Amino acid sequence: MEQRTEVSDYGEFGLIHHLTKNIEIHNVSTILGVGDDAAVIDHFGKQTVVTTDLLIEGVHFDLTYTPLKHLGYKSIVVNLSDIYAMNATPTQVTVSIGISNRLSVEALEEFYDGIYAACEKYGVDLVGGDTASSQKGFIISITALGEVLPEKVVKRSTANKGDLLCCSGDLGGAYLGLLFLEREKRIFLENPGVKPDLGGQDYVIGRLLKPEARKEIIEFFESENILPTSMMDISDGLSSEILHICEKSAVGCTLYEDKLPIMENTRMAAFTFEMDPTACALSGGEDYELIFTIRPEDYEKVRQHPLISIIGHMTDAEESATIITKGGNTHKITAQGWNAFRQ
Amino acid sequence: MEQRTEVSDYGEFGLIHHLTKNIEIHNVSTILGVGDDAAVIDHFGKQTVVTTDLLIEGVHFDLTYTPLKHLGYKSIVVNLSDIYAMNATPTQVTVSIGISNRLSVEALEEFYDGIYAACEKYGVDLVGGDTASSQKGFIISITALGEVLPEKVVKRSTANKGDLLCCSGDLGGAYLGLLFLEREKRIFLENPGVKPDLGGQDYVIGRLLKPEARKEIIEFFESENILPTSMMDISDGLSSEILHICEKSAVGCTLYEDKLPIMENTRMAAFTFEMDPTACALSGGEDYELIFTIRPEDYEKVRQHPLISIIGHMTDAEESATIITKGGNTHKITAQGWNAFRQ
Repeated sequence: MEQRTEVSDYGEFGLIHHLTKNIEIHNVSTILGVGDDAAVIDHFGKQTVVTTDLLIEGVHFDLTYTPLKHLGYKSIVVNLSDIYAMNATPTQVTVSIGISNRLSVEALEEFYDGIYAACEKYGVDLVGGDTASSQKGFIISITALGEVLPEKVVKRSTANKGDLLCCSGDLGGAYLGLLFLEREKRIFLENPGVKPDLGGQDYVIGRLLKPEARKEIIEFFESENILPTSMMDISDGLSSEILHICEKSAVGCTLYEDKLPIMENTRMAAFTFEMDPTACALSGGEDYELIFTIRPEDYEKVRQHPLISIIGHMTDAEESATIITKGGNTHKITAQGWNAFRQ
Repeated sequence: MEQRTEVSDYGEFGLIHHLTKNIEIHNVSTILGVGDDAAVIDHFGKQTVVTTDLLIEGVHFDLTYTPLKHLGYKSIVVNLSDIYAMNATPTQVTVSIGISNRLSVEALEEFYDGIYAACEKYGVDLVGGDTASSQKGFIISITALGEVLPEKVVKRSTANKGDLLCCSGDLGGAYLGLLFLEREKRIFLENPGVKPDLGGQDYVIGRLLKPEARKEIIEFFESENILPTSMMDISDGLSSEILHICEKSAVGCTLYEDKLPIMENTRMAAFTFEMDPTACALSGGEDYELIFTIRPEDYEKVRQHPLISIIGHMTDAEESATIITKGGNTHKITAQGWNAFRQ
């Protein structure tokens, strides 16, 4: 039988100490980490970038099919994705948790294993946080800090007419992973004897449960001396994010359906649910890819990159945001993000 | 009848926009605020200080007797208190909320009125956050950033034998305020007809519901050129915090009961509950005063300050942390913080 240690055996300070005692510091900017009223950071002349996310059990994640280690990993990654989306390098995170007593210390250790794995992979330091009891399910609040040279910050509001619209990686997978897991959960709840059948869906399920942030794209910009004219990360869904950039930058855009990067695995998964893969790519969320615009002069630099797709270009605001389908029809892009799907 | 607008009438982005549309920026360090993937901050050669707190309904606050405006104000103040405790100046905050649908848009406006009132008073900028729905009560997660010259950071771990132990303001009030509100809540739940009787307890109730952070003490240090040798804020209770400083600094301390700053209002409130005011000062929490140590040479500078009490001095670690009572007896200080009281 697995060991189960109650959180109350440690007490608040004991628990924090237990979960943070092996922290290794990766960044010279981390002057003072966990253990005081606040952490101290020195970005040595660079600007500090800060973002935060609140994740609530039953709203943002379902512990029936989310391993705690993956949850810890993903909680960090979704915040780092926002830092990269500013063209910045993440350096520190704080992690606050509200713990229901359903969770044992061993379960929290798994969660922190995921946290530390992500910190290790992305070279960021855990520098603080807060621990509270919660009678109401598991609550996770993460804040990430990063650094960037002032002249390298990339906002959402600075795309120009004529810029090329690009995105990283591939789209729609995480949403289909969610559909599979939700389906198997329903079946399991109705027939607890039936084993979940997730065969062949590893790819899309992995996209949901263990997303990565696009560190390599930001490093590529740096090495190739590319400064995107605008950028954001894809958390709510491609259409929703495109509309944000168009609105904030006061431009329109033309998107080409046949340019959307959709993996074969994702396409097959969509057909299983009798869904249109394009709709999943446009409106499924949680892909944590980057969407960005570049000046046409940078075309040659990006066109060969295996992780970058050029999916359209920016137009006058009056032309609004449109998609040209494979059949040659033009449709307005509407804001069917993640939330719309879930309702 | 009061107007009630449902959160769902706005949608997530609409709600964020509605609640943040009148933000005024106070700090030159705020380069980019709400509205992008992350905020951008430039502390111009100073170090960045970061702290975070998670507040959960039913654990940290009770909406039956906590006005939402006060709750918003206090949520900010408790974080700023941690920034001041590093001898730093707070500059930015992020505010994330998990909203149960019991809360209307009007209720959230009240909460944000409190947030903005605190931001205004302490000169900090709201630069980001996250909004989620929560079926599980109101959840608040706040991160505060501040700035400090590298040589001015004050930690918990650097007190020395012979230093004077000081605290700001007065102690024990917030805990007694909580006792009154809990008592009146119990009476009200048993006899809904009975009006709450909080007469004469304004002081202690105010200490609980609307605490302030000790900005003026940090400004005094600056103007008098005092650098405390260690400092932290009093959130869990004086004894608990003293033990932290002693442990982290590897020193002991002698505390004098007759030097503890306890207001007459607090003393009277304690007697109403047949409690010892000293116990309330030592173990009641949430006072958000500062405890700090100074070099003996700074004695003359602080002794006349109306908000500073010299309550003891630091000793060898072997002497551990002790209190000398009014009767002349010596007791070991034990870690009866806030939590102990609540159990």
